[in-house]
Amino acid sequence: MIPQKDLDQIQDLVLARNWPELRKKLAPLAADEVAPMLLQFGKAERVLLYRCLGRQQAADTFSFFDDDLQHQLLSELTDQETRDILTNLSPDDRTDLLEELPAPVTQRLLTFLSPEDRREALMLLGYPEDSVGRLMSPDFATVRAEMTVGEAMAEIRRQAPDSETLNMIYITDDDGHLLDDVPLRRFIATDEKVKVRDLMDGYYSSLSAFAPQEEAVQLMKQKDFFALPVTDSSGVLIGVVTADDVLDVALEEDTEDIYKGSGIAPMESSYMRAPLYQLYGRRISWLIILVFVNIFSGAGIAHFEELIESVVALVFFLPLLIDSGGNAGSQAATLVIRGMALGDVTAADYIRVAWREIRVAIVLGLSMALAVFLLAWWRSGIAVAQVVALSMIAIVAFGSFIGMSLPFVLRKWNMDPAAASAPLVTSIADITGVLMYLGIASTLLGEVG
Amino acid sequence: MIPQKDLDQIQDLVLARNWPELRKKLAPLAADEVAPMLLQFGKAERVLLYRCLGRQQAADTFSFFDDDLQHQLLSELTDQETRDILTNLSPDDRTDLLEELPAPVTQRLLTFLSPEDRREALMLLGYPEDSVGRLMSPDFATVRAEMTVGEAMAEIRRQAPDSETLNMIYITDDDGHLLDDVPLRRFIATDEKVKVRDLMDGYYSSLSAFAPQEEAVQLMKQKDFFALPVTDSSGVLIGVVTADDVLDVALEEDTEDIYKGSGIAPMESSYMRAPLYQLYGRRISWLIILVFVNIFSGAGIAHFEELIESVVALVFFLPLLIDSGGNAGSQAATLVIRGMALGDVTAADYIRVAWREIRVAIVLGLSMALAVFLLAWWRSGIAVAQVVALSMIAIVAFGSFIGMSLPFVLRKWNMDPAAASAPLVTSIADITGVLMYLGIASTLLGEVG
Repeated sequence: MIPQKDLDQIQDLVLARNWPELRKKLAPLAADEVAPMLLQFGKAERVLLYRCLGRQQAADTFSFFDDDLQHQLLSELTDQETRDILTNLSPDDRTDLLEELPAPVTQRLLTFLSPEDRREALMLLGYPEDSVGRLMSPDFATVRAEMTVGEAMAEIRRQAPDSETLNMIYITDDDGHLLDDVPLRRFIATDEKVKVRDLMDGYYSSLSAFAPQEEAVQLMKQKDFFALPVTDSSGVLIGVVTADDVLDVALEEDTEDIYKGSGIAPMESSYMRAPLYQLYGRRISWLIILVFVNIFSGAGIAHFEELIESVVALVFFLPLLIDSGGNAGSQAATLVIRGMALGDVTAADYIRVAWREIRVAIVLGLSMALAVFLLAWWRSGIAVAQVVALSMIAIVAFGSFIGMSLPFVLRKWNMDPAAASAPLVTSIADITGVLMYLGIASTLLGEVG
Repeated sequence: MIPQKDLDQIQDLVLARNWPELRKKLAPLAADEVAPMLLQFGKAERVLLYRCLGRQQAADTFSFFDDDLQHQLLSELTDQETRDILTNLSPDDRTDLLEELPAPVTQRLLTFLSPEDRREALMLLGYPEDSVGRLMSPDFATVRAEMTVGEAMAEIRRQAPDSETLNMIYITDDDGHLLDDVPLRRFIATDEKVKVRDLMDGYYSSLSAFAPQEEAVQLMKQKDFFALPVTDSSGVLIGVVTADDVLDVALEEDTEDIYKGSGIAPMESSYMRAPLYQLYGRRISWLIILVFVNIFSGAGIAHFEELIESVVALVFFLPLLIDSGGNAGSQAATLVIRGMALGDVTAADYIRVAWREIRVAIVLGLSMALAVFLLAWWRSGIAVAQVVALSMIAIVAFGSFIGMSLPFVLRKWNMDPAAASAPLVTSIADITGVLMYLGIASTLLGEVG
């Protein structure tokens, strides 16, 4: 039993929301002290206290409870009130309180939750947003390496009603560490007396619960499995992610990337269901930012006002030239962003990508220069035509370089490369386009800028 | 036996590649006449002749052969030489020769092919490109409704080694028509003597082999199954598509849409592996097209040359205004295109989408007008500020309207809505932007356009 004085102190620390102190205070306590103490607190405090226990301590305390109390704790850990408390915590407090739960609790919690509740409640497991831990389900069958195939088949039959995915049977040691996966059909085709260990080939793919969901998409894309096993930080099998859930994630991620590609902030709801204020809110910020970026283009033009006044013909080619740089640039950005999303392009590829892109861009620029040169010659004479063609090459090459580099820069700054949207690349390319075009014109046509 | 005269005629028709005549000639023949006749021809002719048979006739002929000959025919139907012949046919000939194969042949062919060969060889089945029929695999377990659960379990065990997907057992009638799907776990939990028919609930989702692969993506997204059964035109179960294959399709489709969104033609290979000439080829066409679209913007500006010369300050706001229309427009296009790809927006929604978009666009335009009004007032006086603000509202509203309408128009013309790329929408919006801005300016500032 814990002395009343300590209990009062603990109570005060909970009220003061002083989690670091609370952790220190709780750390030395044994499970048989913690368990009865928890029962003396009200529901909300109990959950908060439980979340302050060390990982091993939390596991021991959980197993100290009988079935009914375990069930009660699980439901308290995941009910709406707890979710509200934990959702409304400050980021610091969340990190303190939402540490990874011990594997037995995670496994039980997953089974305990209905599929409808699961998505919302998985935030309680202590795995970061958009991590594999938020995606996993408990519907898998697992057997021990030391069983015979006959015992294993009996075990599989017992687990079958709860197992969505029976194609692959997961093999663990006595502590639940994942050792291998073996297709069900190999069990069916093998004599009952053979040891499960002899079916193992030691070759399997698994995901960490902390891994980003993107990794599940990429692994699933490579491996052609229906489900991938998920382990916690100590290698214990705690769930599976299934191909259909990964499909949902992939489609959502792609939608986000596609939206970002046009300067639209990610939305939860579909276009037709989204309220109008949301459609407005997700679009206005980039539109306003881009207005201000475009002021620089205007300023560039204003700087060359005299030149424009004396050779108004130049204005004819302005939209065409600056847009070309933006178009080539957003093509380059799109290729790099998608390559990054699919795992084909990594941060280390910058030099290789740049070298590919520069060569392609120069040939693109040459082709486009040729197309406008004839038009410009016919319309405004050879002098302007030279300026236009030369500008085109420079603008397309430089626009492509900007478009290709921006996703790398954003990633370096820990931002989403997909934020290198077509409008942003276009607006930046516009500024340099204006300066290059009118700069080249003022040099070649002998005007003062 | 078929008389030599007829044989010669048939031979001539094959050489003349006159498939319609050949069909007519073959139609009245019975399977026991066709089968020995086929053996008298060389491999290439045999395959072509077989593909000219009616569907029932082809099925009968196939079952007329013994196992070895069936095997031989299957390998001839799918070997490299045949693929080359069929790939190089004219589109008309392809339609004639690549009719849907009879279900038993399709099923056998799927099992016969190795997973590596499958993707390439599935074009031979007679299902259109990007159809579900090109995606299916034969790895499923099927039982008859009239079996007992005990018999069914024995059957499932027999099929297990070839069945990738054992979660769901498919129930067919004696002719192979799909009747229902039942989870394996329900078999395991049921007494052996119960009839399979009594496990059925008549509630299942299936795909036609002719359906576009997009439909598989959308159904899989809704249903959370690992695999969906595929039936041929007569409702016979011929394959399954699995969630991991659907994931690959979804990612490829999204990549294509994302590329199109920046005016890049679809590429097979990843960015890093694509040869440079391909990176060039997939990008240059839209870039050149857009150059010519942009000429209209230039022409619009040239039309107002005098106005620009007298109020050069107007040029300062030109990039900012026309880009804003393009940006708002490509946001709208992106939302509609993605909505269409995910099945949220259909062709029938045009009026609803337009009404939503117009209201949002006007508020977006007002916000942006406010932002530039102050800037323009400060820089160029109230008269120009009024012109700029008014133009902004008109340009953003109209740009959004264009962006939102273009995908609907393209779909109406049976083109891919995703071709309404950001650069295209931007370029079109630019033209109208130039005309609206300078038109409003020339009216309000009392200048002649």
